[in-house]
Amino acid sequence: MQRSAEIICVGSELLLGDITNTNAQFLAQELAQLGIPHYYQSVVGDNPLRIQRTVAIACDRARLLIFTGGLGPTPDDLTHETLADFFDVPLEERPAVWADIQAKYARRGREIPLSNRKQALIPQGAEVLPNPAGSAPGIIWEPRPGLVLMTFPGVPREMQIMWRETAVPYLQDQGWATAPIHSRTLKFWGIGESNLAEKVNHLFERENPTVAPYASQGSVKLRISARAESEAAARALIDPIAEEILAIAGEHHYGNNDDTLASVVGEQLRRRGQTLAVAESCTGGGLGQMITAAAGSSDYFMGGVISYDNAVKVGLLDVYPSSLASEGAVSDPVACQMAAGVRSRLATDWGVSITGIAGPGGGSAEKPVGLVYIGVAGPDRSVFSRAFQFGNLRGRDWIRHLSCCSALDLLRRSLASN
Amino acid sequence: MQRSAEIICVGSELLLGDITNTNAQFLAQELAQLGIPHYYQSVVGDNPLRIQRTVAIACDRARLLIFTGGLGPTPDDLTHETLADFFDVPLEERPAVWADIQAKYARRGREIPLSNRKQALIPQGAEVLPNPAGSAPGIIWEPRPGLVLMTFPGVPREMQIMWRETAVPYLQDQGWATAPIHSRTLKFWGIGESNLAEKVNHLFERENPTVAPYASQGSVKLRISARAESEAAARALIDPIAEEILAIAGEHHYGNNDDTLASVVGEQLRRRGQTLAVAESCTGGGLGQMITAAAGSSDYFMGGVISYDNAVKVGLLDVYPSSLASEGAVSDPVACQMAAGVRSRLATDWGVSITGIAGPGGGSAEKPVGLVYIGVAGPDRSVFSRAFQFGNLRGRDWIRHLSCCSALDLLRRSLASN
Repeated sequence: MQRSAEIICVGSELLLGDITNTNAQFLAQELAQLGIPHYYQSVVGDNPLRIQRTVAIACDRARLLIFTGGLGPTPDDLTHETLADFFDVPLEERPAVWADIQAKYARRGREIPLSNRKQALIPQGAEVLPNPAGSAPGIIWEPRPGLVLMTFPGVPREMQIMWRETAVPYLQDQGWATAPIHSRTLKFWGIGESNLAEKVNHLFERENPTVAPYASQGSVKLRISARAESEAAARALIDPIAEEILAIAGEHHYGNNDDTLASVVGEQLRRRGQTLAVAESCTGGGLGQMITAAAGSSDYFMGGVISYDNAVKVGLLDVYPSSLASEGAVSDPVACQMAAGVRSRLATDWGVSITGIAGPGGGSAEKPVGLVYIGVAGPDRSVFSRAFQFGNLRGRDWIRHLSCCSALDLLRRSLASN
Repeated sequence: MQRSAEIICVGSELLLGDITNTNAQFLAQELAQLGIPHYYQSVVGDNPLRIQRTVAIACDRARLLIFTGGLGPTPDDLTHETLADFFDVPLEERPAVWADIQAKYARRGREIPLSNRKQALIPQGAEVLPNPAGSAPGIIWEPRPGLVLMTFPGVPREMQIMWRETAVPYLQDQGWATAPIHSRTLKFWGIGESNLAEKVNHLFERENPTVAPYASQGSVKLRISARAESEAAARALIDPIAEEILAIAGEHHYGNNDDTLASVVGEQLRRRGQTLAVAESCTGGGLGQMITAAAGSSDYFMGGVISYDNAVKVGLLDVYPSSLASEGAVSDPVACQMAAGVRSRLATDWGVSITGIAGPGGGSAEKPVGLVYIGVAGPDRSVFSRAFQFGNLRGRDWIRHLSCCSALDLLRRSLASN
């Protein structure tokens, strides 16, 4: 059997939906980094019979079972008892563990509840996996040759410290962590996932590096993952694939890995020593918020006007009342006047505007919900707008989000060609 | 076998840890609300063999299998194909589904990639579960007597709409939802979770209704859940507990269930026929965005000024340069002048301002990162500000988020006492 891992999260609070299972995500990322294959995750409640059934299934599928949860002092914390029972091994109290738990309580000046003593009960033959951040230790245990179990508390902070300090060195020592996976994520805006996928379809069959498409929040991503012994070796595998993709879809590519549209635009402005102001109607401040999410954005972002009401468009952005009357607030001339107006009022190099119908009300046959004009005024006093039709399928928040991202993307392309 | 449900999330991105499995949490909460037992969750990659193995196990444990993910147009989206194969039923193209997908693309003025056609392939005998928010439909299918499968896309928003609009009515019709759980969530701002929990500690031992505390995004919540045959019976159980809690922590209570600080403030303004404008520095538009997230906010929200740079505070908000020089931008006088300035410039009843140090840079011993002044100017021309110290433990995004919420909360309390 291949030496793959499986994650088993124990806790009735997960089955009630009271908490998000961030532990599974953390462990999944870590396994990928270490290059340990991992094909299944399970969640099960604090129930001995169901935990045992889950273990039985996992033993047939994987050689490393990673448990989170069920190590606390309360009667429904049963992970160690249940595992000992399943593998028919007695629990034994470890004096060093009990002393450690007592010392931790003493340091905090708190009386130790007797129920905590059960946390010192460990299956015979298991190694203790120390918990520097809490009372409950985990175990590393090989109950059968070639089958390794690890247990962690459900508290993410404790689990993560124990994973990094003890589990990772153990896995590296024992040869579990083989060639790790290095990856680079290319990010695109302005092209749909299936459109991009069709263009680079031939790459999806590759083995090393692999190429996989993702979409989130309107951004489309291609992740290139290489299994290699070093960063440099990975780069040598990834670079030619990245180049091939960029040759196909280059104009839509805005950045890699942690880049955002806002961080990329900000970097361009900073490099040129130029400044930006925004005029927002239907997004109500969302574009400004996106831009200022980047620390240091005060280097290039001066501010803006939220012209939700038409009177504000006239009063603070010098939009012509006649344009509002004849063309309506959601129109090319108003978008252009807003962009030029905020650029001029705030004395910046660039002005970007958004005016649209985010819905659910306010649409008409001629101007449906989802119609958004985005204006860009540049340092050469040029100004233009583009109409976007985001549709009304996914609602108000989505239209507003796409509007802000599209405004940043339009500015990005304007900066690139300016 | 008991009529229990099982959640199976399909997607290699979950195994790579690229995304958090919020779908499992949403579905778990919904199943609990409906009173449908649920003992296991599984995550499996986009791999036909492993999906089939997972289905085989789940069929032995549960009578309702709920799938998310793997319905997209790309070659690795295989959920429907794999299920059809497992139950030995052919796929068939549903013309109505294909027409619907084409119409959705046409409405957005986009060319439809041919790969999308596979989304119209549905196992013979399955009902289509319509997706009003995206292209991929799901299915409701009884491939064997007493075994029901439901499939949903992995995109949380699409999945949630489909769940609420089609799956829940189906489950209620078919008698899956038994003695359901009715709940009311009371929401609080301005009091910590453990503080509130201590005050209402005696309620946490109750059985029906139960009371459980939650905290998310700085808001503290108490959920009162009653198991009862009818809304009215549940209300009779919940009302006295809710009254008891409000008597203890009433001033911090801002709303229930789906209420947000922004929706509550908006409702108060609408009821009074009053209007609001905002002046934002460190939040960069986030307050305006929060307010305009509510549809219909144009009834009371006029707009605002994002005065990120001091020149904008002076130019568009009439802040005194002398105040900026002597007190600094993050100070009581500047917060008051910003609130009064935006109220006056936009001719509204209320003006709210935010000026603070969101970090990570810009802090000093006297004015550390996390210090934020919030100003409120009212219809009686009164104006005041309050200083908040949000600390620097959880970073820039968190400080900005707390700033926006605290501004809404301060306005809420001002409206209540005005």
